[in-house]
Amino acid sequence: MKKGCKFGTHRVIEPKGILPQPAKVISNDMAIYDNEILIDVKTLNIDSASFTQIKEEAGGDEAKIKEIMMGIVKDAGKHKNPVTGSGGMLIGTVAQIGPALEGTTDLKVGDKIATLVSLSLTPLVIDEILEIRMNIDQVDIKGKAILFESGIYAKLPDDIPENLALSVLDVAGAPAQTAKLVKPGQTVLVIGGAGKSGMLCLYEAKKRAGVTGQVICLQHSDKAKDRVMDAGLADDFIVADATDAVDVLRKVEEVTGGNMCDLVINCVNIPNTEMASILATKDDGTVYFFSMATSFTKAALGAEGVGKDVTMIVGNGYTKGHAEITLQIMRESQTLRDIYESLYA
Amino acid sequence: MKKGCKFGTHRVIEPKGILPQPAKVISNDMAIYDNEILIDVKTLNIDSASFTQIKEEAGGDEAKIKEIMMGIVKDAGKHKNPVTGSGGMLIGTVAQIGPALEGTTDLKVGDKIATLVSLSLTPLVIDEILEIRMNIDQVDIKGKAILFESGIYAKLPDDIPENLALSVLDVAGAPAQTAKLVKPGQTVLVIGGAGKSGMLCLYEAKKRAGVTGQVICLQHSDKAKDRVMDAGLADDFIVADATDAVDVLRKVEEVTGGNMCDLVINCVNIPNTEMASILATKDDGTVYFFSMATSFTKAALGAEGVGKDVTMIVGNGYTKGHAEITLQIMRESQTLRDIYESLYA
Repeated sequence: MKKGCKFGTHRVIEPKGILPQPAKVISNDMAIYDNEILIDVKTLNIDSASFTQIKEEAGGDEAKIKEIMMGIVKDAGKHKNPVTGSGGMLIGTVAQIGPALEGTTDLKVGDKIATLVSLSLTPLVIDEILEIRMNIDQVDIKGKAILFESGIYAKLPDDIPENLALSVLDVAGAPAQTAKLVKPGQTVLVIGGAGKSGMLCLYEAKKRAGVTGQVICLQHSDKAKDRVMDAGLADDFIVADATDAVDVLRKVEEVTGGNMCDLVINCVNIPNTEMASILATKDDGTVYFFSMATSFTKAALGAEGVGKDVTMIVGNGYTKGHAEITLQIMRESQTLRDIYESLYA
Repeated sequence: MKKGCKFGTHRVIEPKGILPQPAKVISNDMAIYDNEILIDVKTLNIDSASFTQIKEEAGGDEAKIKEIMMGIVKDAGKHKNPVTGSGGMLIGTVAQIGPALEGTTDLKVGDKIATLVSLSLTPLVIDEILEIRMNIDQVDIKGKAILFESGIYAKLPDDIPENLALSVLDVAGAPAQTAKLVKPGQTVLVIGGAGKSGMLCLYEAKKRAGVTGQVICLQHSDKAKDRVMDAGLADDFIVADATDAVDVLRKVEEVTGGNMCDLVINCVNIPNTEMASILATKDDGTVYFFSMATSFTKAALGAEGVGKDVTMIVGNGYTKGHAEITLQIMRESQTLRDIYESLYA
């Protein structure tokens, strides 16, 4: 059996010498290296930006979606959408564990896991697409995948249904980072707070900011207002277009008595929301960009342009314990669990 | 006199309702609003990425460079390079101060200042281009500019020559952020450490990390090695291609005894250096991206892809006191001052 690199560079075909994620083509040969894990895949959870693009390209036609997805994997050896650059994640069963991992992994053959690294770097073979759950970005397949030694995963718990676990684990980084950032008494704004990652962030922010804090949900329409407020996820609900920085500034000024926010978490997957996030933050505050539509230069030049001394953080989908923190929310809050089961599972 | 918005939105022509930086066209009518400052411009310091692009487009021809620059300002009302999206900064003399700023500004007519907001949002008129200093991105002009109420600036000190002040103020955010981040005993890597912002970061890192710390300079060639090491700016010098993440990982492992870095500061203006920055950082460490070539998604997905729990920060060109911190370096270190005078002034 061949010896592999921790980061999977041994699988990179083109261009040579780089890591699997930025690579254009990787090997999806399902004979494992000594430090790899082979997975029987059950379900792919395609990244939301990627799946939206594929659905649009296919004009909503299911056969055409299958064709596009099979084509991506055939060309790249992985499901990295060539337009959006993004992947997603998967759930499946451990089929084989490389001998070099013995004693270092807590996994055994037969364990059900969700991989928490992006599909954009995961060697994948799709034999057949069995079912597409159009509105929750999930695709059941017959196929196999490889997890690298540096790859992260979560064992699926017995007390949470698989589809629900997959849905919330997909955005596990967001609530876990929120939990690390929010301090008692703080004012926190979640832009796109009524969405899948947004509500989990609101929940953690509410819990950490406590009764002396203020948690604000900003959403582009008031459709989800009752859901968010009835679930007690926020103290205030702002309806605004997050690309309209000046309007957001005025509305946040209003609900915060002009004090603005200690922390702004951006969870909205549309471009040009950097300035609204920056203007809503107080001096010395923090902006956490979870949106994959964030432009680095727009954020950097935007803050400088208005002379704002704020710390802007690039959302990291991984932080220690993120899977556990997120699954725990589904155990703690029956209200939120009901919402996520009805919307995303 | 008309009343203006703090952020200059009153000058935006197209598209309406957004801020001056992202706007395509702003008004460069030099009749000021009540909260604006009019500046007689002496020198433009064009952003390095922008000036490189302009020089290339012009094939190095000076007349053609002038034509391109005049064209940019004619079309946009500001010097925002349509290809790179970036600006630069300027020095000049205060010509008029809006009455609404009386009592809130420390400026008076005749003061020499450097504006520290980007040219990409600064209303500008160029009457004539007098001189182009090709290799330091500086252009002397006859012209005028407007500073908004939220715009930041530094009064030019008497004890530092103008061109030198302009050169270091252009990158003032980098050393000031470094000063805030580095703690005694830390291991700090500056990628592109031999460049204009890089050496200032090294200097601050050395000062803050102290004798128990380790400061490492990474550069693509060893040409600048003697200059950096003789000036005492770094403890170690690595020659590596920052786009080769795996090579950088191995070399940083070597000089840190496998411990990796608490803080990695990326000052190199080329694409695809995100992964090298992430891999060189230890778990729970911080990556500070100053490079405008940074891709948000490459950073976000890159860290997740290798399961690295690092905090990634979007470089903010502004932080309180950044001009003072940076000018102070030119007073403290005659060695560094000599280097910057010979290279960048």
